[in-house]
Amino acid sequence: MSLIVAKFGGTSVANPQRIKDVATRLTNYQKDGHQVVAVVSAMGSSTDDLMKLAYSVNEKPPARELDMLLATGEQVSMSVLAMAIEALGVDAVSMTGTQAGIVTTTVFNRAKIAEIKASRIKRELKNGSIVIVAGFQGMTEEGDITTLGRGGSDTTAVAIAAAIGADVCEIYSDVDGVATADPRIVPHAKKLDAISFDEMLELAASGSGILQMRAVEVARNYGVTIHCRSAFTTTPGTFVKEAKSMESAIVSGIACDNSEVKVTIRGVPDQVGIAANVFTAIAEAQISVDMIVQNISEHGMTDISFTCPENDLAKLRPLLDEQIGKLGAREYLVDVTVAKVSVVGAGMKSNPGIAAKMFQVLADNNINIEMISTSAIRVSVVIDSPDAKEAMQKLHTAFGLDSDQVFEETQLTPEELAAKAAKGR
Amino acid sequence: MSLIVAKFGGTSVANPQRIKDVATRLTNYQKDGHQVVAVVSAMGSSTDDLMKLAYSVNEKPPARELDMLLATGEQVSMSVLAMAIEALGVDAVSMTGTQAGIVTTTVFNRAKIAEIKASRIKRELKNGSIVIVAGFQGMTEEGDITTLGRGGSDTTAVAIAAAIGADVCEIYSDVDGVATADPRIVPHAKKLDAISFDEMLELAASGSGILQMRAVEVARNYGVTIHCRSAFTTTPGTFVKEAKSMESAIVSGIACDNSEVKVTIRGVPDQVGIAANVFTAIAEAQISVDMIVQNISEHGMTDISFTCPENDLAKLRPLLDEQIGKLGAREYLVDVTVAKVSVVGAGMKSNPGIAAKMFQVLADNNINIEMISTSAIRVSVVIDSPDAKEAMQKLHTAFGLDSDQVFEETQLTPEELAAKAAKGR
Repeated sequence: MSLIVAKFGGTSVANPQRIKDVATRLTNYQKDGHQVVAVVSAMGSSTDDLMKLAYSVNEKPPARELDMLLATGEQVSMSVLAMAIEALGVDAVSMTGTQAGIVTTTVFNRAKIAEIKASRIKRELKNGSIVIVAGFQGMTEEGDITTLGRGGSDTTAVAIAAAIGADVCEIYSDVDGVATADPRIVPHAKKLDAISFDEMLELAASGSGILQMRAVEVARNYGVTIHCRSAFTTTPGTFVKEAKSMESAIVSGIACDNSEVKVTIRGVPDQVGIAANVFTAIAEAQISVDMIVQNISEHGMTDISFTCPENDLAKLRPLLDEQIGKLGAREYLVDVTVAKVSVVGAGMKSNPGIAAKMFQVLADNNINIEMISTSAIRVSVVIDSPDAKEAMQKLHTAFGLDSDQVFEETQLTPEELAAKAAKGR
Repeated sequence: MSLIVAKFGGTSVANPQRIKDVATRLTNYQKDGHQVVAVVSAMGSSTDDLMKLAYSVNEKPPARELDMLLATGEQVSMSVLAMAIEALGVDAVSMTGTQAGIVTTTVFNRAKIAEIKASRIKRELKNGSIVIVAGFQGMTEEGDITTLGRGGSDTTAVAIAAAIGADVCEIYSDVDGVATADPRIVPHAKKLDAISFDEMLELAASGSGILQMRAVEVARNYGVTIHCRSAFTTTPGTFVKEAKSMESAIVSGIACDNSEVKVTIRGVPDQVGIAANVFTAIAEAQISVDMIVQNISEHGMTDISFTCPENDLAKLRPLLDEQIGKLGAREYLVDVTVAKVSVVGAGMKSNPGIAAKMFQVLADNNINIEMISTSAIRVSVVIDSPDAKEAMQKLHTAFGLDSDQVFEETQLTPEELAAKAAKGR
């Protein structure tokens, strides 16, 4: 008997039929003797509909009320899933984030899980019920409803798995597992059977959409094995777990991230503490900066470039306007047509020359590199976004990742793919 | 400065524009120096949509999960209203039933309010915020979400008014106030400026849709003055309050209720305790029985007739099948084409002959009376529903209630009227 946490994204519960399919899958687990906690996202495009409603009455919806509104999305999908399970003659209990004891920080719209008081989840499992928990939401110590922001539902699932000591946290989605690259860009991408937390983290940080970085971080910190698999088949997907038991390939995947922009502050006086001032102000506004590059100083002036999510631009611009004045800098430029392409692999640590090979492949294909950043298991470059597809394909081939077969197609309709792309809940 | 509780039904918050109108009304209260708690129903037909979703996965949705699902309706309208208020530059805080401290019994789908722990409402009022509370919902001591059933939002509003000692509980709807009869049936109905709790209770119990009986009961028990008024005008409506300050008309209104059915159990052995057995079983199934008539015994057998909500028939039938066997009764019959017409007035107490006059008017118009029940301030008769309209109009005229003018038309579209008729949340 295993204790399983299974997370289903919005597309897996997009309509009543899909909810029934998930119910069947969950009751089968129970028939096989397992205990199951399901974590669900909101149905299909319901989050977008709620956002539209919010913006129809307030151009800047207050954060607390937006969370109150968005949290209804999971409350709908979880209660309907519980009904579908009960229709199959199996007991089910749905729980809001509040009821499931998911205590978060008081940062509305992007709260972090502080603690899970899992006593009720455990009690209901003991009673023989399938437990369904709302993903993406929690409550503050004061009892206010919060949402966890992008990737919140994956994080909920992994955090619950950690809190109840689950054997595995299954993350169901519309793809078969973690691939060596996005199959929509690189058709000959391969599904990986297993990948280490560190590699998965780098892939997630580099724009691989299948698992959210926060979820992988929690999994690594608490040693939760994640199983990324398709909601439309029973084929095993990709296990994300401790690296020790795995034979790592040198390079395990190529990722691409189009969601960031490159910002350059020009003519910054080259004095101690200047960069700290800028990035402290940015951090205080809760904007995540990824790559940072400072040019060599010339005549006591320098340029600072960094990348950050395009979504944060509205918040960033007034902040930079202010900082430009304070710093005595010349101006700032925003380039939105950039892409970050990353080569990730645990084997890199002991194989120098991966970065050099990457730069050579790009140079051979006349692709200009604008920024570079590296970690022990990743090399990322920022390039012009129109070049990204070619870069991915050439790198995938160059690092020996190409499969003989074309990766299995997604099961989604074009509308669902579009909705999914628009929102990464 | 007054402390006001204002309840807005589903049609008053049916779309973003109406929500903005409500927001304007509430901020005007605040500008005039009042403190306001708003209680809202779900937007327009959203409850029906949620019900459809539930039934699409389970023909008999489990009660707990249905409440979990339906409770999202108010959570949407309340958070969007809070956003609309904040767009006008005024602080607003929305609260679920759970957050507002509305503790109920553990009877899902038709819970009763046990207690309101209003400390958070009071604190937020003190902070200068407009407080918005979800109508229709609460939570059990165990933290499960419940709904209050038909008329729940009115009850929420009145109970909060009692808990915080509000000066008045305003119930906004699409009509101008309490009328002497339903203007859609009796065009020359008059709006009443004031009515006593007892009369309002009898009107509500007799099918006058404007205020739910449970809400009036709570108002009477706690001395909360209710002000029924239109959400589309600023004209005062009808005050419902203690009778002492009012000059009561002999008859204050005529009501009609089409929502009940007449059930007759035939051939019941006329023994002590038989009726008690039947009605105990019905009460235990949480079915409200209204009028009960037992015929004179013949050959040791009798017939028992009663009325109950048509909605409860599905629950009632298997129960009666069982009771028929136990009692040794012959059969039971259900008549769905009945209407209950009631004449209500505090002045009746000191004016005998109202019942006689009512029966005479019906007889003069060849309308057959099937059942009769009376209280100190009400006489009700069950008649064939096709006769109800004529009965109402003739009685309205006979008791001198006709106005010179036609009652102001409703502000609703035909679709909204239909949706409203379908659901009395």
